[in-house]
Amino acid sequence: MTRQQRQTLDELLRHGPLDIGGDVVEQRAVFHEMIASIPLPADVSLTPDQLGGVPVLTVETPGSDPSTVLLYFHGGAYAIGSAADGAGLAADVARRVGARAVSVEYRLAPEHPFPAAVDDAVAAYRALLDQGVPSDRIAFVGESAGGGLVVAALVAAKDAGLPQPASAAVFSPWTDLTLSGGSLVGKAAVDPSLTAAGLRTRAGDYLGATDPAVPTASPLFADLTGLPPLLVQVGSHEILLDDATRLAARAAEHDVRVDLQVWPQVPHVFQSFAAMLDEADAALDAAAAFVRAQWAAAAAEQATAEQAEQGSELQSQGAPS
Amino acid sequence: MTRQQRQTLDELLRHGPLDIGGDVVEQRAVFHEMIASIPLPADVSLTPDQLGGVPVLTVETPGSDPSTVLLYFHGGAYAIGSAADGAGLAADVARRVGARAVSVEYRLAPEHPFPAAVDDAVAAYRALLDQGVPSDRIAFVGESAGGGLVVAALVAAKDAGLPQPASAAVFSPWTDLTLSGGSLVGKAAVDPSLTAAGLRTRAGDYLGATDPAVPTASPLFADLTGLPPLLVQVGSHEILLDDATRLAARAAEHDVRVDLQVWPQVPHVFQSFAAMLDEADAALDAAAAFVRAQWAAAAAEQATAEQAEQGSELQSQGAPS
Repeated sequence: MTRQQRQTLDELLRHGPLDIGGDVVEQRAVFHEMIASIPLPADVSLTPDQLGGVPVLTVETPGSDPSTVLLYFHGGAYAIGSAADGAGLAADVARRVGARAVSVEYRLAPEHPFPAAVDDAVAAYRALLDQGVPSDRIAFVGESAGGGLVVAALVAAKDAGLPQPASAAVFSPWTDLTLSGGSLVGKAAVDPSLTAAGLRTRAGDYLGATDPAVPTASPLFADLTGLPPLLVQVGSHEILLDDATRLAARAAEHDVRVDLQVWPQVPHVFQSFAAMLDEADAALDAAAAFVRAQWAAAAAEQATAEQAEQGSELQSQGAPS
Repeated sequence: MTRQQRQTLDELLRHGPLDIGGDVVEQRAVFHEMIASIPLPADVSLTPDQLGGVPVLTVETPGSDPSTVLLYFHGGAYAIGSAADGAGLAADVARRVGARAVSVEYRLAPEHPFPAAVDDAVAAYRALLDQGVPSDRIAFVGESAGGGLVVAALVAAKDAGLPQPASAAVFSPWTDLTLSGGSLVGKAAVDPSLTAAGLRTRAGDYLGATDPAVPTASPLFADLTGLPPLLVQVGSHEILLDDATRLAARAAEHDVRVDLQVWPQVPHVFQSFAAMLDEADAALDAAAAFVRAQWAAAAAEQATAEQAEQGSELQSQGAPS
């Protein structure tokens, strides 16, 4: 049904100006222009703010419940993109979830190499908790490098003793900066937007002398035990396909509740193209349903725990002392 | 929330009498008694029939739409189990989907080694098509070996030139009879029901002198291109975890629409225990939603195609000759 849509998008990306491994200043401008060519819906409001010293952009759509927060991490291979560039997709997810999104302006490489991005992600999350937002009313969402950053930040938050959010949803996450996935080669011909060489350049910018297998740089190699329910979405026409399938397998091995959803013949972060691609619309609805379901489960669990506590209080009050 | 439920089920299975690698006649009786200990709901009707010379059991629940069919394949390592033993789970899926299920009495090893089971699966499917049931009103569903058989039958049907069904859903599928998954060892301590040694015995019964890597015996190694949307569900406390995660990765590589859903800390085919385990209930609801969504998508696609055809007919009628 959507073959025509997929072909149109593929052509658009193949002939687009973005060169993921190109000069970083130039490509930031190109990426921004690409994003800006799709105007934000008029009912989306953007409010600059900061969280724990990290600049953020609060993204709101009408009727969203401000007590629930999507902490949002944009893509761009850790060197490109911005909180504002991510606002369109963040708004689309937030609207479907019915929450506000907070798009994080984490520092970029090469100016600010690893672990600056992870530090900023954790700092923003910690500040949100310090503001009194319960962890189980928060979900992490991210695309591409921002998807890898979601998982890295969950691991870093765990290591720092912070509670986990209710869930996380990642679109085409870049989880392996060693670039060892078979799809780097196997899907090269059908991927219209990314190249292994480009990613290798950006990994170098981000990592400097750091071992690319460090777990908070390549969360594919992290201990994922204790992470919250995780949704991984990916297209089959992308060289990062194996970064997603292996993340799901690793999470499963570590007893994480994980859903992997693969859409065939669509490109990297195809969710950005909901206006022209049925699969994007369906994937965003599925992501929103996943996030909402985990919030509902957390709320139900808390209600059960409170009932049990009240029950034991009544029991102890009634017991002879 | 369900920790107590999970522990109870784990204990039950650990101390249960089933020995998947034990004497086949004895274990068939043990398996049947285990299943029979959970009586079928009173409103489930079972009707023996045959499809293409293969015995089947039609499983119906009130209000099911007889025009939609789940072709159901029971578990039991290709040597144990029966169409009737699978009827309880088949009925539970069928009720949630709102379809009738047809549980297939495929021939068992060691009396009937590979490819008898695959031949029976394809024969039953072909007969269903010959009866006039459209392929896009059929879904394949299977558990354990029956899940592997689902994928093997889809591949065999493709090779035979038959159309694919609308979707397939497999629970804890056994897809690799070479037993090469890392979870065979990594999850051995937490799996309360299966052992690698037991599966090795049963693989030997089924395969005889056949190479275990033959694609229709181990569909993990098959060309999955062209398969319909596939749902794979698995628990993280089972030695066949990697059979599920690798199947999803393989399907993704081959451009199949695939969802993998992993539930932590639950055992092999945990969906059988919906009466005592919240995860089972949730997983069955998710499976039913997946199957229904694919039927709806197929119906929408057909409507679009018919409109396009009518449009072009009108156009050709109106065009000057």
